[in-house]
Amino acid sequence: MRNAARVVVFLFAVMVAASTAAAGTDALPSWNDGAAKSAIIAFVQTATDKASMKFVPPEQRIAVFDNDGTLWASHPMYVQLAFALDRVKELAPAHPAWKNEQPFKAVLEGDLETVMAGGEHALLEIIMATHAGMTTDAFSQIVLDWLATARHPKTGRLYTEMVYQPMLELLAYLRANGFKTFIVSGGGIEFMRPWTERIYGVPPEQVIGSSIKTKFELRDGASVLVRLPEINFIDDKAGKPVGINQHIGRRPVATFGNSDGDIEMLQYTDSGKGAHLEMLVLHDDARREYAYTGDTKVGRLCKGLPLAKERGWQLISMKNDWKTIFPEE
Amino acid sequence: MRNAARVVVFLFAVMVAASTAAAGTDALPSWNDGAAKSAIIAFVQTATDKASMKFVPPEQRIAVFDNDGTLWASHPMYVQLAFALDRVKELAPAHPAWKNEQPFKAVLEGDLETVMAGGEHALLEIIMATHAGMTTDAFSQIVLDWLATARHPKTGRLYTEMVYQPMLELLAYLRANGFKTFIVSGGGIEFMRPWTERIYGVPPEQVIGSSIKTKFELRDGASVLVRLPEINFIDDKAGKPVGINQHIGRRPVATFGNSDGDIEMLQYTDSGKGAHLEMLVLHDDARREYAYTGDTKVGRLCKGLPLAKERGWQLISMKNDWKTIFPEE
Repeated sequence: MRNAARVVVFLFAVMVAASTAAAGTDALPSWNDGAAKSAIIAFVQTATDKASMKFVPPEQRIAVFDNDGTLWASHPMYVQLAFALDRVKELAPAHPAWKNEQPFKAVLEGDLETVMAGGEHALLEIIMATHAGMTTDAFSQIVLDWLATARHPKTGRLYTEMVYQPMLELLAYLRANGFKTFIVSGGGIEFMRPWTERIYGVPPEQVIGSSIKTKFELRDGASVLVRLPEINFIDDKAGKPVGINQHIGRRPVATFGNSDGDIEMLQYTDSGKGAHLEMLVLHDDARREYAYTGDTKVGRLCKGLPLAKERGWQLISMKNDWKTIFPEE
Repeated sequence: MRNAARVVVFLFAVMVAASTAAAGTDALPSWNDGAAKSAIIAFVQTATDKASMKFVPPEQRIAVFDNDGTLWASHPMYVQLAFALDRVKELAPAHPAWKNEQPFKAVLEGDLETVMAGGEHALLEIIMATHAGMTTDAFSQIVLDWLATARHPKTGRLYTEMVYQPMLELLAYLRANGFKTFIVSGGGIEFMRPWTERIYGVPPEQVIGSSIKTKFELRDGASVLVRLPEINFIDDKAGKPVGINQHIGRRPVATFGNSDGDIEMLQYTDSGKGAHLEMLVLHDDARREYAYTGDTKVGRLCKGLPLAKERGWQLISMKNDWKTIFPEE
């Protein structure tokens, strides 16, 4: 027993030391002191304080994050669009007609302006030609293979290296305080799931996104799901609270976005009764990332800014609130 | 330090005692020794054994359970149908025309035969009249209020007391071994979510089911989701693997069902590469529950039985494998 006791005393000392260290440690080292960081910490303290009127029981600690522009860079082009354009080029040899068929012709000629001029219809054609027709397992592998080599046009880094370091810390900080973290993105659910666990610590079952329909099939005795060229759900704007309810079945208490597509899920969170937090990332750092928030041409946060003021939603300035943007190389 | 050391030695002794007790404890006390119980234990031992070729990493330990007839009694009538019929009676004063309008007339007259003769169309009308038109929050409360008093026609017990004790133990045993437990039911997702956490330990975000569409709305500044009389998804048969993929994004490694509606999700699990387990509950205990499996009239497991034999899926005989059926009163 004496040896066991010694071991335990040692373990106890380690535990005390660790807990002291934890209390003194900054869980958000990439965040500058300021209103944004203070709002996060105050929210977590209130939500986890049993004595508070606004205490949030652990099972209700649901935090949702938009992905594009909130967790990773999505400029000058959504990463999934870059993927789709690359896929068109990859698949072109098997589709000789594409050389004379829009929007594929423009994609193959690198004429992005013509592609974009085709609007939603052109994009949908590109998505269906590149995202459907294979099994879910095959698509997952195609995404992983592409992400392993595709690089951002400005920084030359892998897209998965262009995630925001302060948001990685925020995800971990929330989880350490009993929150379940979800992604709620307008992007494709199956485009995100293969890598979100490794990159963000968010498992596939906590990813919500837009989707196409799938069909169950037996092929040579093995069961597969085949991806069909038919929209199933668009997880954007008023679709975000709908998607949240479908997948989670609870009202989130913390919501993070960066664009007008996130307004409704911030509103959904804002109607909660206990502690709740709504934040919007501002792309205002032309030097270290981009400055396009509020730009009426490429800006994706227009209606959201006056609403944020009216509702007291907390803004996150990439320029002022973040010490670093991306993880160290 | 001496006092702290004493406390820690005591804690250590408690831990050792607890772990010894755990090793000697039967995690499935309501299961008789036999092939079913052995299959469960062998599967969990293989899946959690790092030295095994069929080891399943913790994040891939997804177990899915059908609900009606697998986790709780669903005879002589699906509980949700009993709920819908009661709701028709409750709402009738506000719908005087129902007195002369089928299928409502038959419901109000207690003429279940005529209701059922109306087939899927009649059921859909009843579902939409009773499940749509209110907010998701309001519907959740309606379900809870009904379940608090509605009773099974044969036993007189609350429906939530007619859950299968051996399956409660199985859910807990899997979770204790690092599995995430999900419900995958043909029943309504919003009909289950309000109570599955309390009764099964399965939180709303781990419940998959059939659904109607919802619409986001701001009402007096508060955000709500309104339930629309329009089918969104039918989580049955080939829909089950589709629903599993939509919500979880991984292939389950353990699947439990009881009817032909569960076959495709058993097949989906059966194609996995590591350890996997497929089980079907047989309703063969007329004395303690019901004996209707294989009955071609009310039986819901017909195609499944020969398939189980062919594929080596493990059957669970309520009569032989379960010591007790329902929790003690």
